[in-house]
Amino acid sequence: MTLTDAPSPEAIRAAIDNKTMPPGALGRIEALAAQIARIQGALAPRADRCALTIFAADHGMAAAGVSAFPQAVTRQMVLNFLHGGAAATVFARALGASVRVVDAGVAGAPIDHDALLDRRIAAGTANAIDGPAMSPAQCAAALDAGEAIGRATSADVACFGEMGIGNTSSASLLAAKLAGLPVAALAGRGTGLDDAALARKVSLLERAAGRTPDTLSARDALEHYGGFEIAMMAGAMIGAAAARRVVIVDGFIAGAAALCARDVAPGCEASFVYAHRSAEAGHRRMLDALGAEPLLDLDMRLGEGTGALLAWPLVKAAAAMLREMATFDGAGVSGPSAPGS
Amino acid sequence: MTLTDAPSPEAIRAAIDNKTMPPGALGRIEALAAQIARIQGALAPRADRCALTIFAADHGMAAAGVSAFPQAVTRQMVLNFLHGGAAATVFARALGASVRVVDAGVAGAPIDHDALLDRRIAAGTANAIDGPAMSPAQCAAALDAGEAIGRATSADVACFGEMGIGNTSSASLLAAKLAGLPVAALAGRGTGLDDAALARKVSLLERAAGRTPDTLSARDALEHYGGFEIAMMAGAMIGAAAARRVVIVDGFIAGAAALCARDVAPGCEASFVYAHRSAEAGHRRMLDALGAEPLLDLDMRLGEGTGALLAWPLVKAAAAMLREMATFDGAGVSGPSAPGS
Repeated sequence: MTLTDAPSPEAIRAAIDNKTMPPGALGRIEALAAQIARIQGALAPRADRCALTIFAADHGMAAAGVSAFPQAVTRQMVLNFLHGGAAATVFARALGASVRVVDAGVAGAPIDHDALLDRRIAAGTANAIDGPAMSPAQCAAALDAGEAIGRATSADVACFGEMGIGNTSSASLLAAKLAGLPVAALAGRGTGLDDAALARKVSLLERAAGRTPDTLSARDALEHYGGFEIAMMAGAMIGAAAARRVVIVDGFIAGAAALCARDVAPGCEASFVYAHRSAEAGHRRMLDALGAEPLLDLDMRLGEGTGALLAWPLVKAAAAMLREMATFDGAGVSGPSAPGS
Repeated sequence: MTLTDAPSPEAIRAAIDNKTMPPGALGRIEALAAQIARIQGALAPRADRCALTIFAADHGMAAAGVSAFPQAVTRQMVLNFLHGGAAATVFARALGASVRVVDAGVAGAPIDHDALLDRRIAAGTANAIDGPAMSPAQCAAALDAGEAIGRATSADVACFGEMGIGNTSSASLLAAKLAGLPVAALAGRGTGLDDAALARKVSLLERAAGRTPDTLSARDALEHYGGFEIAMMAGAMIGAAAARRVVIVDGFIAGAAALCARDVAPGCEASFVYAHRSAEAGHRRMLDALGAEPLLDLDMRLGEGTGALLAWPLVKAAAAMLREMATFDGAGVSGPSAPGS
């Protein structure tokens, strides 16, 4: 997709350089403001409203022992999100973002709660160690459901989070197949594996990766390795970008979704702002594959969209800078004393 | 000062570890939450209200040509703050912080504006290249005025910003004398000096530094090198820390004020949160001297409190995490499957 009516890079640069501050003094906030202007096609962009959508689903691989936590935690955390007690919901409330929780395929019976958006593809994926996680039809349904959710974003800024015990394993396999890297370079401790459990996880993921060619398309990779929440998030990123929203990409799982999104809809990544460098071991390699330079580096590895939410105030401030700051002429402020100094 | 009624480090750690997330998953946000709990002496801390105070004053050194901008810009920017058009005021409005502007000693006649707090020590400092910037009485008056302002902070979080053409020169000299470093290691391009102008600035600062011993107390350093806004900010940091507010330390100038504050009132630095790593060349050395690990690194070098404001949402979210997140027991969420995993 192209944003043909966006202001020219020169017009954006000139607007920023006329603001009452020394040239370049806001560093990466200036680059961020310019990106938001391009996304919205406006020299007075806005990032005041932020919506967090959390996609939850289960992974058949959890049964193989790839996580420190039992599968039941996915379901328990969905209820924790709905009750506002999880980190992402606390951050959203503190910072003023809205929250929506989507059941993309949590194991067990459907959860009955008015505020939960039911987009269940199935009660969890199949175990991806020895066979595909989902069918092509399920993969397409998840991408489509996500795209509709993303397109319907009314906020200026879309943050996407996830919950799914086992999903660092899915994300490692997806990134490995999309970036053509060995899965061992991407696998990490997830929610807190010790050395022995990490070695076991890597061995299982290498077995799973060995089932397919070194590189795969996003659709094939999602079909083989899951999960429903990652496919739906990838679709939502595509939809939100198409609706010209700023998409804040959270951490390791969201990074895998971003890799899938730009493979399915090349160009959508122009709308992506990368929130943070995660403490999950493989994230550095994933960020390299994305060509991403994240805004924050706070040693976080929680997911749920927590990193994306913490990056939103920077996005909000950057848009406000371009929209509201005075110009040298307008404010009667003198420029530098001598040219080039 | 000591915060004797603060909860024990063990109690704070236990409270964080009981939250519904994998151990340590919020990284530096957890350490920040623990610091806020210690500052407020509370396991349910709060950082919802933030006040930015901007101190403005002029520097006699500006006449020597140490800045890319003319001295008149200090006064022009005070009006820009009061009209809400400067970066710091735009950020404050976007993020929901209050703003107060203090005239600590702007050159020329007093500025007549209802919203400006008049704490003028004089109409700018003397030129510090060849003699003291201020008298001992002026230094004491600036520290005292600042301390009263800091103590009166009603917000949970105090951000301090500054405006003063020439003040990276003052800050470089202060940091050099307080940290025992050569001033050339601290001097940088400020608002945008080119190579020749930077060489001239360094030469002037070395002449100024040569007037006094290699290390000085904060009071002596402020008296010799200024400025009124830095002394008043140092006092305000001391006052706000005494009132148990979280003090967010902005960039290069605020870092020099922080070095002065902890020299005048040892222990106050327990309340300091360091906002960002500035692009000003000497900031890395200054942060080392402060033992500071800032939260953000966004290539900014504007001052005014802009970096402090952008760090505030992280502080707000950290306090909310400790105050509002559910516990494993409370939310019925299972812990890790196996001990140590």
